[in-house]
Amino acid sequence: MRLVTYAGSDGGARPAAVVSGAEGDRVLDLGDLAGSVEDLLPDAAALAAARERVAAADPSVLPVFDAAALAAPVTPGKILCLGYNYRGHVPDGVDPTANDPEYPDVFVKTPNTLAGPNEPVVIPPGAIDVDYEGEVAVVIGRRAQRVSLEDALDHVGGYTILNDVSDRAWQRRQSQWALGKCSDGFAPLGPWIVTPDEVPDPQDLLVEVVRDGVVTVSQSTSTTIFSVAYVIHHLSQVLTLEPGDIVSTGTPQKLPAAQETHRPLADGDAVTVRISGIGELTTRFVAAQEAAA
Amino acid sequence: MRLVTYAGSDGGARPAAVVSGAEGDRVLDLGDLAGSVEDLLPDAAALAAARERVAAADPSVLPVFDAAALAAPVTPGKILCLGYNYRGHVPDGVDPTANDPEYPDVFVKTPNTLAGPNEPVVIPPGAIDVDYEGEVAVVIGRRAQRVSLEDALDHVGGYTILNDVSDRAWQRRQSQWALGKCSDGFAPLGPWIVTPDEVPDPQDLLVEVVRDGVVTVSQSTSTTIFSVAYVIHHLSQVLTLEPGDIVSTGTPQKLPAAQETHRPLADGDAVTVRISGIGELTTRFVAAQEAAA
Repeated sequence: MRLVTYAGSDGGARPAAVVSGAEGDRVLDLGDLAGSVEDLLPDAAALAAARERVAAADPSVLPVFDAAALAAPVTPGKILCLGYNYRGHVPDGVDPTANDPEYPDVFVKTPNTLAGPNEPVVIPPGAIDVDYEGEVAVVIGRRAQRVSLEDALDHVGGYTILNDVSDRAWQRRQSQWALGKCSDGFAPLGPWIVTPDEVPDPQDLLVEVVRDGVVTVSQSTSTTIFSVAYVIHHLSQVLTLEPGDIVSTGTPQKLPAAQETHRPLADGDAVTVRISGIGELTTRFVAAQEAAA
Repeated sequence: MRLVTYAGSDGGARPAAVVSGAEGDRVLDLGDLAGSVEDLLPDAAALAAARERVAAADPSVLPVFDAAALAAPVTPGKILCLGYNYRGHVPDGVDPTANDPEYPDVFVKTPNTLAGPNEPVVIPPGAIDVDYEGEVAVVIGRRAQRVSLEDALDHVGGYTILNDVSDRAWQRRQSQWALGKCSDGFAPLGPWIVTPDEVPDPQDLLVEVVRDGVVTVSQSTSTTIFSVAYVIHHLSQVLTLEPGDIVSTGTPQKLPAAQETHRPLADGDAVTVRISGIGELTTRFVAAQEAAA
Protein backbone atom coordinates (compact mmCIF):
# COMPACT_ATOMS: atom_id res chain seq x y z
CA MET A 1 0.00 0.00 0.00
CA ARG A 2 1.21 3.48 -0.85
CA LEU A 3 0.08 6.08 1.68
CA VAL A 4 0.11 9.79 0.97
CA THR A 5 -0.95 13.06 2.49
CA TYR A 6 -3.11 14.58 -0.20
CA ALA A 7 -4.86 17.93 -0.63
CA GLY A 8 -8.57 17.16 -0.73
CA SER A 9 -11.14 19.11 -2.72
CA ASP A 10 -11.53 21.42 0.29
CA GLY A 11 -7.79 22.16 0.25
CA GLY A 12 -7.16 20.40 3.58
CA ALA A 13 -4.52 17.67 3.77
CA ARG A 14 -5.96 14.17 4.21
CA PRO A 15 -4.51 10.69 4.38
CA ALA A 16 -5.07 8.71 1.21
CA ALA A 17 -3.80 5.68 -0.68
CA VAL A 18 -2.49 5.61 -4.22
CA VAL A 19 -4.08 2.76 -6.17
CA SER A 20 -2.64 1.40 -9.41
CA GLY A 21 -5.09 1.19 -12.28
CA ALA A 22 -4.93 0.17 -15.90
CA GLU A 23 -4.88 3.81 -16.87
CA GLY A 24 -2.46 5.00 -14.26
CA ASP A 25 -2.56 5.84 -10.57
CA ARG A 26 -5.75 6.83 -8.80
CA VAL A 27 -6.25 8.22 -5.32
CA LEU A 28 -8.41 6.71 -2.60
CA ASP A 29 -9.35 8.97 0.28
CA LEU A 30 -8.82 7.57 3.79
CA GLY A 31 -9.73 10.72 5.68
CA ASP A 32 -12.63 9.06 7.44
CA LEU A 33 -10.31 6.46 8.98
CA ALA A 34 -7.75 8.82 10.53
CA GLY A 35 -6.89 12.49 10.62
CA SER A 36 -3.39 11.99 9.28
CA VAL A 37 -1.04 9.29 8.06
CA GLU A 38 0.83 9.41 11.36
CA ASP A 39 -2.46 8.72 13.15
CA LEU A 40 -3.33 5.94 10.72
CA LEU A 41 -0.08 4.00 11.03
CA PRO A 42 -0.36 2.92 14.69
CA ASP A 43 -4.11 2.23 14.45
CA ALA A 44 -4.27 -1.45 13.50
CA ALA A 45 -8.01 -1.42 12.85
CA ALA A 46 -7.90 1.65 10.65
CA LEU A 47 -4.89 0.32 8.78
CA ALA A 48 -6.67 -3.00 8.15
CA ALA A 49 -9.73 -1.13 6.95
CA ALA A 50 -7.54 0.88 4.59
CA ARG A 51 -6.02 -2.29 3.18
CA GLU A 52 -9.43 -3.83 2.61
CA ARG A 53 -10.64 -0.70 0.91
CA VAL A 54 -7.60 -0.58 -1.38
CA ALA A 55 -8.00 -4.28 -2.25
CA ALA A 56 -11.68 -3.81 -3.07
CA ALA A 57 -11.29 -0.53 -4.95
CA ASP A 58 -12.29 -0.13 -8.58
CA PRO A 59 -9.61 2.26 -9.84
CA SER A 60 -11.70 3.30 -12.81
CA VAL A 61 -14.14 5.16 -10.58
CA LEU A 62 -11.49 6.85 -8.42
CA PRO A 63 -10.09 10.33 -9.06
CA VAL A 64 -6.91 10.46 -11.10
CA PHE A 65 -3.88 10.78 -8.82
CA ASP A 66 -2.38 14.24 -9.08
CA ALA A 67 1.19 14.29 -7.79
CA ALA A 68 0.97 18.06 -7.48
CA ALA A 69 -1.53 17.61 -4.62
CA LEU A 70 0.97 15.80 -2.39
CA ALA A 71 2.24 17.15 0.89
CA ALA A 72 4.98 15.48 2.92
CA PRO A 73 3.53 12.02 3.67
CA VAL A 74 3.85 12.53 7.44
CA THR A 75 4.60 15.41 9.77
CA PRO A 76 7.26 13.82 11.95
CA GLY A 77 7.77 14.76 15.57
CA LYS A 78 11.44 14.15 15.02
CA ILE A 79 13.72 13.49 12.07
CA LEU A 80 16.77 11.45 13.06
CA CYS A 81 19.44 10.94 10.45
CA LEU A 82 22.51 8.77 10.18
CA GLY A 83 25.90 9.97 9.08
CA TYR A 84 28.33 7.52 7.54
CA ASN A 85 26.35 4.27 7.09
CA TYR A 86 27.41 2.81 3.72
CA ARG A 87 30.65 0.97 3.20
CA GLY A 88 32.89 2.28 0.46
CA HIS A 89 34.36 0.31 -2.38
CA VAL A 90 37.47 -1.61 -1.35
CA PRO A 91 40.01 -3.55 -3.43
CA ASP A 92 39.70 -7.34 -3.65
CA GLY A 93 41.10 -9.02 -0.60
CA VAL A 94 40.39 -6.08 1.71
CA ASP A 95 37.80 -6.62 4.43
CA PRO A 96 34.99 -4.16 3.61
CA THR A 97 33.99 -4.08 7.28
CA ALA A 98 37.46 -3.08 8.49
CA ASN A 99 36.54 0.57 8.94
CA ASP A 100 33.06 0.04 10.36
CA PRO A 101 32.33 2.31 13.31
CA GLU A 102 31.01 0.70 16.46
CA TYR A 103 27.94 2.95 16.67
CA PRO A 104 25.80 4.84 14.16
CA ASP A 105 26.51 8.56 14.06
CA VAL A 106 23.14 10.24 14.61
CA PHE A 107 22.04 13.83 14.11
CA VAL A 108 18.75 15.68 14.05
CA LYS A 109 16.95 17.73 11.43
CA THR A 110 14.54 20.24 12.98
CA PRO A 111 10.84 20.50 11.99
CA ASN A 112 11.43 23.60 9.84
CA THR A 113 13.40 21.42 7.41
CA LEU A 114 10.37 19.34 6.39
CA ALA A 115 9.20 19.91 2.81
CA GLY A 116 6.67 18.21 0.60
CA PRO A 117 7.74 16.27 -2.47
CA ASN A 118 6.83 19.13 -4.81
CA GLU A 119 8.33 21.99 -2.87
CA PRO A 120 11.49 23.47 -4.32
CA VAL A 121 14.40 23.86 -1.92
CA VAL A 122 15.43 27.46 -1.53
CA ILE A 123 19.19 27.89 -1.49
CA PRO A 124 19.66 30.30 1.42
CA PRO A 125 21.16 33.72 0.75
CA GLY A 126 24.93 33.45 0.81
CA ALA A 127 25.01 29.65 0.82
CA ILE A 128 27.97 28.51 -1.24
CA ASP A 129 28.08 24.73 -0.86
CA VAL A 130 24.62 23.15 -0.79
CA ASP A 131 24.61 19.42 -1.52
CA TYR A 132 22.11 16.56 -1.78
CA GLU A 133 21.96 13.18 -0.05
CA GLY A 134 19.54 10.51 -1.25
CA GLU A 135 18.30 8.29 1.56
CA VAL A 136 15.86 5.55 2.48
CA ALA A 137 13.69 7.11 5.19
CA VAL A 138 12.03 4.77 7.64
CA VAL A 139 8.66 5.93 8.96
CA ILE A 140 7.88 4.73 12.46
CA GLY A 141 4.47 3.09 12.65
CA ARG A 142 4.29 2.02 16.27
CA ARG A 143 5.93 3.55 19.33
CA ALA A 144 9.37 2.01 19.88
CA GLN A 145 10.95 2.09 23.32
CA ARG A 146 13.85 -0.28 24.02
CA VAL A 147 12.79 -2.78 21.39
CA SER A 148 14.86 -5.85 20.65
CA LEU A 149 16.65 -6.33 17.35
CA GLU A 150 14.21 -9.14 16.57
CA ASP A 151 11.12 -6.99 17.11
CA ALA A 152 12.46 -3.77 15.63
CA LEU A 153 10.93 -4.06 12.16
CA ASP A 154 7.48 -4.52 13.72
CA HIS A 155 7.67 -0.81 14.57
CA VAL A 156 8.21 0.29 10.98
CA GLY A 157 5.13 1.82 9.36
CA GLY A 158 6.73 2.09 5.94
CA TYR A 159 9.48 3.50 3.80
CA THR A 160 9.82 6.71 1.91
CA ILE A 161 12.59 8.91 0.48
CA LEU A 162 14.43 11.79 2.09
CA ASN A 163 16.82 14.17 0.43
CA ASP A 164 19.06 15.18 3.34
CA VAL A 165 19.97 18.54 1.84
CA SER A 166 23.12 19.85 3.48
CA ASP A 167 25.03 23.10 3.49
CA ARG A 168 28.59 21.77 3.60
CA ALA A 169 30.10 25.14 4.41
CA TRP A 170 28.01 25.47 7.55
CA GLN A 171 28.49 21.79 8.35
CA ARG A 172 32.28 22.24 8.41
CA ARG A 173 32.23 25.32 10.64
CA GLN A 174 31.51 23.50 13.93
CA SER A 175 31.90 20.04 15.38
CA GLN A 176 28.13 19.58 15.37
CA TRP A 177 26.37 19.55 12.01
CA ALA A 178 23.03 21.15 12.96
CA LEU A 179 23.58 24.42 11.12
CA GLY A 180 24.57 22.51 8.00
CA LYS A 181 21.48 20.36 8.13
CA CYS A 182 18.64 22.51 9.45
CA SER A 183 17.96 25.31 6.97
CA ASP A 184 14.28 25.77 6.19
CA GLY A 185 13.05 23.20 3.70
CA PHE A 186 16.22 21.09 3.73
CA ALA A 187 14.29 17.81 4.17
CA PRO A 188 12.10 17.11 1.14
CA LEU A 189 10.20 13.91 1.92
CA GLY A 190 8.04 11.61 -0.15
CA PRO A 191 6.33 11.11 -2.46
CA TRP A 192 4.59 8.35 -0.51
CA ILE A 193 5.08 5.75 2.19
CA VAL A 194 5.31 2.17 0.97
CA THR A 195 4.12 -0.19 3.69
CA PRO A 196 6.51 -2.97 4.79
CA ASP A 197 4.51 -5.80 3.19
CA GLU A 198 5.64 -4.37 -0.16
CA VAL A 199 9.28 -4.00 0.93
CA PRO A 200 10.28 -7.59 1.62
CA ASP A 201 13.89 -6.75 2.43
CA PRO A 202 14.93 -3.20 3.36
CA GLN A 203 18.56 -4.35 3.00
CA ASP A 204 18.04 -5.07 -0.69
CA LEU A 205 17.08 -1.70 -2.15
CA LEU A 206 19.01 0.14 -4.83
CA VAL A 207 19.49 3.81 -3.91
CA GLU A 208 20.27 6.04 -6.86
CA VAL A 209 20.57 9.75 -7.37
CA VAL A 210 20.29 11.40 -10.75
CA ARG A 211 21.53 14.92 -11.25
CA ASP A 212 21.28 16.67 -14.58
CA GLY A 213 20.60 13.31 -16.21
CA VAL A 214 23.71 11.69 -14.74
CA VAL A 215 23.60 8.94 -12.12
CA THR A 216 25.80 10.23 -9.31
CA VAL A 217 24.92 7.70 -6.60
CA SER A 218 24.14 4.01 -7.09
CA GLN A 219 24.51 1.62 -4.21
CA SER A 220 22.42 -1.05 -2.55
CA THR A 221 21.24 -0.92 1.04
CA SER A 222 22.91 -4.32 1.31
CA THR A 223 26.13 -2.34 1.83
CA THR A 224 24.97 -0.43 4.87
CA ILE A 225 26.89 -0.88 8.08
CA PHE A 226 23.78 -0.71 10.27
CA SER A 227 20.55 -2.33 9.08
CA VAL A 228 17.14 -0.73 9.47
CA ALA A 229 16.32 -3.22 12.21
CA TYR A 230 19.55 -2.46 14.05
CA VAL A 231 19.08 1.29 13.83
CA ILE A 232 15.51 1.16 15.18
CA HIS A 233 16.65 -1.15 17.99
CA HIS A 234 19.64 1.05 18.74
CA LEU A 235 17.85 4.41 18.74
CA SER A 236 15.01 3.01 20.83
CA GLN A 237 17.44 2.18 23.63
CA VAL A 238 18.13 5.89 24.04
CA LEU A 239 14.88 7.63 23.15
CA THR A 240 11.29 6.76 22.36
CA LEU A 241 10.36 6.71 18.68
CA GLU A 242 6.77 7.76 17.95
CA PRO A 243 4.48 7.08 15.00
CA GLY A 244 5.36 9.40 12.14
CA ASP A 245 8.94 9.89 13.27
CA ILE A 246 11.51 9.62 10.48
CA VAL A 247 14.73 7.66 10.77
CA SER A 248 16.80 8.35 7.69
CA THR A 249 19.40 5.71 7.02
CA GLY A 250 22.25 7.69 5.51
CA THR A 251 23.48 8.25 1.99
CA PRO A 252 25.88 6.21 -0.11
CA GLN A 253 28.99 8.01 -1.32
CA LYS A 254 28.83 9.64 -4.70
CA LEU A 255 30.35 7.60 -7.52
CA PRO A 256 34.00 8.50 -8.23
CA ALA A 257 33.20 10.33 -11.46
CA ALA A 258 30.48 12.33 -9.69
CA GLN A 259 32.89 13.24 -6.91
CA GLU A 260 35.38 14.55 -9.44
CA THR A 261 32.86 16.74 -11.23
CA HIS A 262 30.82 17.75 -8.19
CA ARG A 263 29.70 21.34 -7.90
CA PRO A 264 27.37 22.85 -5.29
CA LEU A 265 23.68 22.97 -6.11
CA ALA A 266 22.58 26.13 -7.88
CA ASP A 267 19.43 27.84 -9.03
CA GLY A 268 17.57 25.65 -11.50
CA ASP A 269 19.20 22.34 -10.58
CA ALA A 270 17.01 19.28 -10.13
CA VAL A 271 17.97 16.17 -8.20
CA THR A 272 16.07 12.90 -8.34
CA VAL A 273 16.47 10.26 -5.65
CA ARG A 274 15.07 6.93 -6.78
CA ILE A 275 14.88 3.81 -4.67
CA SER A 276 13.85 0.44 -6.04
CA GLY A 277 10.47 -0.67 -4.73
CA ILE A 278 9.77 2.72 -3.19
CA GLY A 279 9.66 5.36 -5.91
CA GLU A 280 11.40 8.58 -6.73
CA LEU A 281 11.61 12.06 -5.31
CA THR A 282 12.62 14.94 -7.54
CA THR A 283 13.62 18.21 -5.92
CA ARG A 284 14.18 21.51 -7.67
CA PHE A 285 16.64 23.98 -6.21
CA VAL A 286 15.99 27.69 -6.52
CA ALA A 287 17.90 30.78 -5.47
CA ALA A 288 16.58 32.75 -2.52
CA GLN A 289 14.86 36.04 -3.19
CA GLU A 290 17.57 38.27 -1.85
CA ALA A 291 15.07 41.03 -1.06
CA ALA A 292 14.19 39.15 2.13
CA ALA A 293 17.77 39.36 3.41
CA MET B 1 6.07 39.51 33.99
CA ARG B 2 6.47 35.84 34.78
CA LEU B 3 4.57 33.62 32.35
CA VAL B 4 3.77 29.99 33.08
CA THR B 5 1.84 27.09 31.69
CA TYR B 6 -0.41 26.10 34.52
CA ALA B 7 -2.89 23.29 35.10
CA GLY B 8 -6.30 24.92 35.47
CA SER B 9 -9.10 23.62 37.66
CA ASP B 10 -10.24 21.50 34.70
CA GLY B 11 -6.78 19.91 34.47
CA GLY B 12 -6.00 21.47 31.09
CA ALA B 13 -2.83 23.49 30.70
CA ARG B 14 -3.41 27.23 30.33
CA PRO B 15 -1.18 30.27 30.05
CA ALA B 16 -1.02 32.29 33.23
CA ALA B 17 1.07 34.91 34.98
CA VAL B 18 2.62 34.64 38.41
CA VAL B 19 1.91 37.76 40.44
CA SER B 20 3.86 38.70 43.57
CA GLY B 21 1.76 39.47 46.60
CA ALA B 22 2.42 40.40 50.20
CA GLU B 23 1.65 36.83 51.21
CA GLY B 24 3.52 35.09 48.41
CA ASP B 25 2.95 34.36 44.76
CA ARG B 26 -0.49 34.21 43.22
CA VAL B 27 -1.56 32.98 39.81
CA LEU B 28 -3.50 35.01 37.25
CA ASP B 29 -5.15 33.06 34.46
CA LEU B 30 -4.56 34.33 30.91
CA GLY B 31 -6.32 31.50 29.11
CA ASP B 32 -8.88 33.83 27.56
CA LEU B 33 -6.11 35.81 25.85
CA ALA B 34 -4.30 32.92 24.11
CA GLY B 35 -4.37 29.16 24.00
CA SER B 36 -0.76 28.78 25.08
CA VAL B 37 2.26 30.83 26.10
CA GLU B 38 3.81 30.29 22.65
CA ASP B 39 0.65 31.78 21.12
CA LEU B 40 0.63 34.66 23.59
CA LEU B 41 4.24 35.76 23.03
CA PRO B 42 3.94 36.90 19.39
CA ASP B 43 0.50 38.48 19.90
CA ALA B 44 1.30 42.07 20.82
CA ALA B 45 -2.28 42.95 21.73
CA ALA B 46 -2.74 39.90 23.96
CA LEU B 47 0.62 40.46 25.58
CA ALA B 48 -0.25 44.11 26.31
CA ALA B 49 -3.58 43.02 27.76
CA ALA B 50 -1.77 40.51 29.97
CA ARG B 51 0.57 43.24 31.25
CA GLU B 52 -2.32 45.54 32.05
CA ARG B 53 -4.12 42.78 33.86
CA VAL B 54 -1.03 41.91 35.92
CA ALA B 55 -0.46 45.59 36.79
CA ALA B 56 -4.08 45.99 37.87
CA ALA B 57 -4.35 42.70 39.74
CA ASP B 58 -5.14 42.54 43.43
CA PRO B 59 -3.04 39.54 44.52
CA SER B 60 -5.10 39.02 47.67
CA VAL B 61 -8.07 37.82 45.63
CA LEU B 62 -6.09 35.56 43.28
CA PRO B 63 -5.51 31.84 43.82
CA VAL B 64 -2.31 30.91 45.64
CA PHE B 65 0.38 29.90 43.16
CA ASP B 66 1.02 26.16 43.33
CA ALA B 67 4.38 25.27 41.79
CA ALA B 68 3.23 21.66 41.50
CA ALA B 69 0.71 22.71 38.85
CA LEU B 70 3.40 23.91 36.43
CA ALA B 71 4.06 22.33 33.07
CA ALA B 72 6.97 23.32 30.84
CA PRO B 73 6.34 27.03 30.17
CA VAL B 74 6.25 26.50 26.38
CA THR B 75 6.12 23.54 24.03
CA PRO B 76 8.92 24.47 21.65
CA GLY B 77 8.91 23.48 18.01
CA LYS B 78 12.65 23.18 18.29
CA ILE B 79 15.23 23.24 21.04
CA LEU B 80 18.59 24.50 19.82
CA CYS B 81 21.50 24.34 22.21
CA LEU B 82 25.01 25.69 22.24
CA GLY B 83 28.09 23.71 23.09
CA TYR B 84 31.13 25.49 24.44
CA ASN B 85 30.04 29.11 25.02
CA TYR B 86 31.66 30.25 28.29
CA ARG B 87 35.26 31.26 28.53
CA GLY B 88 37.34 29.44 31.11
CA HIS B 89 39.43 30.96 33.82
CA VAL B 90 42.83 32.06 32.55
CA PRO B 91 45.90 33.33 34.41
CA ASP B 92 46.52 37.07 34.61
CA GLY B 93 48.06 38.41 31.46
CA VAL B 94 46.50 35.75 29.22
CA ASP B 95 43.93 36.93 26.71
CA PRO B 96 40.68 35.19 27.75
CA THR B 97 39.41 35.40 24.17
CA ALA B 98 42.44 33.61 22.71
CA ASN B 99 40.64 30.29 22.38
CA ASP B 100 37.29 31.65 21.23
CA PRO B 101 35.83 29.64 18.36
CA GLU B 102 34.71 31.56 15.29
CA TYR B 103 31.18 30.10 15.33
CA PRO B 104 28.84 28.76 18.00
CA ASP B 105 28.65 24.97 18.07
CA VAL B 106 24.94 24.15 17.80
CA PHE B 107 23.07 20.93 18.41
CA VAL B 108 19.44 19.92 18.73
CA LYS B 109 17.39 18.34 21.50
CA THR B 110 14.34 16.49 20.14
CA PRO B 111 10.76 17.13 21.40
CA ASN B 112 10.76 13.95 23.53
CA THR B 113 13.36 15.58 25.79
CA LEU B 114 11.01 18.32 27.02
CA ALA B 115 10.00 18.00 30.66
CA GLY B 116 8.12 20.23 33.04
CA PRO B 117 9.84 21.84 36.02
CA ASN B 118 8.44 19.25 38.43
CA GLU B 119 9.06 16.13 36.41
CA PRO B 120 11.88 13.93 37.63
CA VAL B 121 14.43 12.89 35.03
CA VAL B 122 14.54 9.14 34.59
CA ILE B 123 18.07 7.82 34.31
CA PRO B 124 17.74 5.40 31.38
CA PRO B 125 18.43 1.72 31.97
CA GLY B 126 22.12 1.08 31.62
CA ALA B 127 23.11 4.76 31.57
CA ILE B 128 26.40 5.14 33.40
CA ASP B 129 27.38 8.76 32.98
CA VAL B 130 24.42 11.13 33.16
CA ASP B 131 25.36 14.74 33.86
CA TYR B 132 23.63 18.11 34.28
CA GLU B 133 24.17 21.45 32.54
CA GLY B 134 22.56 24.62 33.89
CA GLU B 135 21.70 27.09 31.15
CA VAL B 136 19.91 30.34 30.40
CA ALA B 137 17.25 29.37 27.85
CA VAL B 138 16.02 32.07 25.51
CA VAL B 139 12.38 31.76 24.46
CA ILE B 140 11.67 33.14 21.01
CA GLY B 141 8.75 35.57 21.06
CA ARG B 142 8.54 36.68 17.44
CA ARG B 143 9.56 34.84 14.28
CA ALA B 144 13.22 35.50 13.48
CA GLN B 145 14.49 35.07 9.95
CA ARG B 146 17.80 36.69 9.00
CA VAL B 147 17.56 39.33 11.68
CA SER B 148 20.35 41.81 12.23
CA LEU B 149 22.43 41.83 15.38
CA GLU B 150 20.80 45.14 16.31
CA ASP B 151 17.26 43.81 16.02
CA ALA B 152 17.89 40.33 17.42
CA LEU B 153 16.74 40.96 21.00
CA ASP B 154 13.39 42.23 19.69
CA HIS B 155 12.63 38.59 18.88
CA VAL B 156 13.14 37.37 22.43
CA GLY B 157 9.92 36.60 24.29
CA GLY B 158 11.66 35.92 27.56
CA TYR B 159 14.14 33.89 29.53
CA THR B 160 13.84 30.66 31.42
CA ILE B 161 16.09 27.85 32.66
CA LEU B 162 17.07 24.62 30.94
CA ASN B 163 18.93 21.72 32.45
CA ASP B 164 20.63 20.25 29.39
CA VAL B 165 20.81 16.75 30.84
CA SER B 166 23.43 14.74 28.97
CA ASP B 167 24.52 11.12 28.86
CA ARG B 168 28.27 11.56 28.47
CA ALA B 169 28.88 7.92 27.59
CA TRP B 170 26.53 8.15 24.60
CA GLN B 171 27.81 11.59 23.75
CA ARG B 172 31.36 10.26 23.42
CA ARG B 173 30.45 7.32 21.22
CA GLN B 174 29.93 9.26 17.99
CA SER B 175 31.03 12.54 16.48
CA GLN B 176 27.50 13.90 16.75
CA TRP B 177 26.04 14.34 20.23
CA ALA B 178 22.36 13.56 19.54
CA LEU B 179 22.23 10.26 21.38
CA GLY B 180 23.89 11.83 24.40
CA LYS B 181 21.39 14.67 24.48
CA CYS B 182 18.03 13.27 23.38
CA SER B 183 16.88 10.70 25.94
CA ASP B 184 13.26 11.13 26.98
CA GLY B 185 12.86 13.91 29.53
CA PHE B 186 16.44 15.19 29.25
CA ALA B 187 15.34 18.83 28.93
CA PRO B 188 13.60 20.02 32.12
CA LEU B 189 12.47 23.58 31.43
CA GLY B 190 11.08 26.30 33.64
CA PRO B 191 9.72 27.18 36.05
CA TRP B 192 8.56 30.31 34.21
CA ILE B 193 9.46 32.74 31.48
CA VAL B 194 10.62 36.14 32.64
CA THR B 195 9.84 38.75 30.00
CA PRO B 196 12.73 40.89 28.69
CA ASP B 197 11.58 44.10 30.42
CA GLU B 198 12.59 42.41 33.69
CA VAL B 199 15.95 41.18 32.34
CA PRO B 200 17.71 44.44 31.52
CA ASP B 201 20.96 42.77 30.46
CA PRO B 202 21.06 39.08 29.50
CA GLN B 203 24.86 39.32 29.58
CA ASP B 204 24.82 40.12 33.30
CA LEU B 205 23.17 37.06 34.85
CA LEU B 206 24.80 34.78 37.40
CA VAL B 207 24.33 31.13 36.48
CA GLU B 208 24.74 28.73 39.40
CA VAL B 209 24.18 25.04 39.89
CA VAL B 210 23.75 23.48 43.32
CA ARG B 211 24.15 19.76 43.74
CA ASP B 212 23.74 18.12 47.12
CA GLY B 213 24.01 21.55 48.75
CA VAL B 214 27.30 22.35 47.04
CA VAL B 215 27.66 25.08 44.40
CA THR B 216 29.27 23.32 41.45
CA VAL B 217 28.85 26.01 38.80
CA SER B 218 29.01 29.77 39.32
CA GLN B 219 29.72 32.03 36.40
CA SER B 220 28.22 35.14 34.87
CA THR B 221 26.78 35.32 31.38
CA SER B 222 29.19 38.23 30.96
CA THR B 223 31.79 35.54 30.23
CA THR B 224 29.97 33.98 27.29
CA ILE B 225 31.71 33.99 23.95
CA PHE B 226 28.51 34.59 21.98
CA SER B 227 25.86 36.94 23.39
CA VAL B 228 22.13 36.20 23.26
CA ALA B 229 21.76 38.84 20.57
CA TYR B 230 24.56 37.33 18.51
CA VAL B 231 23.21 33.81 18.81
CA ILE B 232 19.70 34.81 17.70
CA HIS B 233 21.15 36.79 14.82
CA HIS B 234 23.46 33.95 13.85
CA LEU B 235 20.93 31.12 14.02
CA SER B 236 18.36 33.16 12.14
CA GLN B 237 20.72 33.42 9.16
CA VAL B 238 20.45 29.66 8.73
CA LEU B 239 16.95 28.75 9.85
CA THR B 240 13.75 30.45 10.90
CA LEU B 241 13.12 30.69 14.64
CA GLU B 242 9.46 30.53 15.64
CA PRO B 243 7.60 31.71 18.76
CA GLY B 244 8.12 29.21 21.56
CA ASP B 245 11.39 27.89 20.17
CA ILE B 246 14.13 27.51 22.75
CA VAL B 247 17.70 28.64 22.22
CA SER B 248 19.77 27.45 25.15
CA THR B 249 22.96 29.37 25.60
CA GLY B 250 25.37 26.76 26.92
CA THR B 251 26.66 25.91 30.34
CA PRO B 252 29.63 27.28 32.24
CA GLN B 253 32.30 24.78 33.24
CA LYS B 254 32.02 23.21 36.64
CA LEU B 255 34.17 24.80 39.30
CA PRO B 256 37.54 23.05 39.74
CA ALA B 257 36.57 21.41 43.05
CA ALA B 258 33.34 20.14 41.51
CA GLN B 259 35.23 18.72 38.57
CA GLU B 260 37.52 16.82 40.91
CA THR B 261 34.70 15.27 42.90
CA HIS B 262 32.26 14.82 40.04
CA ARG B 263 30.29 11.59 39.86
CA PRO B 264 27.47 10.72 37.45
CA LEU B 265 23.92 11.47 38.53
CA ALA B 266 22.23 8.66 40.41
CA ASP B 267 18.85 7.75 41.80
CA GLY B 268 17.76 10.32 44.38
CA ASP B 269 20.06 13.12 43.31
CA ALA B 270 18.65 16.62 43.00
CA VAL B 271 20.18 19.44 40.98
CA THR B 272 19.14 23.07 41.23
CA VAL B 273 19.97 25.56 38.50
CA ARG B 274 19.50 29.12 39.68
CA ILE B 275 19.92 32.20 37.58
CA SER B 276 19.82 35.71 38.99
CA GLY B 277 16.72 37.61 37.93
CA ILE B 278 15.11 34.51 36.47
CA GLY B 279 14.58 31.95 39.22
CA GLU B 280 15.55 28.39 39.94
CA LEU B 281 14.81 24.98 38.52
CA THR B 282 15.25 21.91 40.70
CA THR B 283 15.32 18.52 39.04
CA ARG B 284 15.21 15.16 40.77
CA PHE B 285 16.88 12.19 39.14
CA VAL B 286 15.39 8.74 39.54
CA ALA B 287 16.43 5.29 38.37
CA ALA B 288 14.44 3.73 35.55
CA GLN B 289 12.01 0.99 36.36
CA GLU B 290 13.99 -1.84 34.84
CA ALA B 291 10.83 -3.87 34.25
CA ALA B 292 10.17 -1.76 31.16
CA ALA B 293 13.43 -2.85 29.56
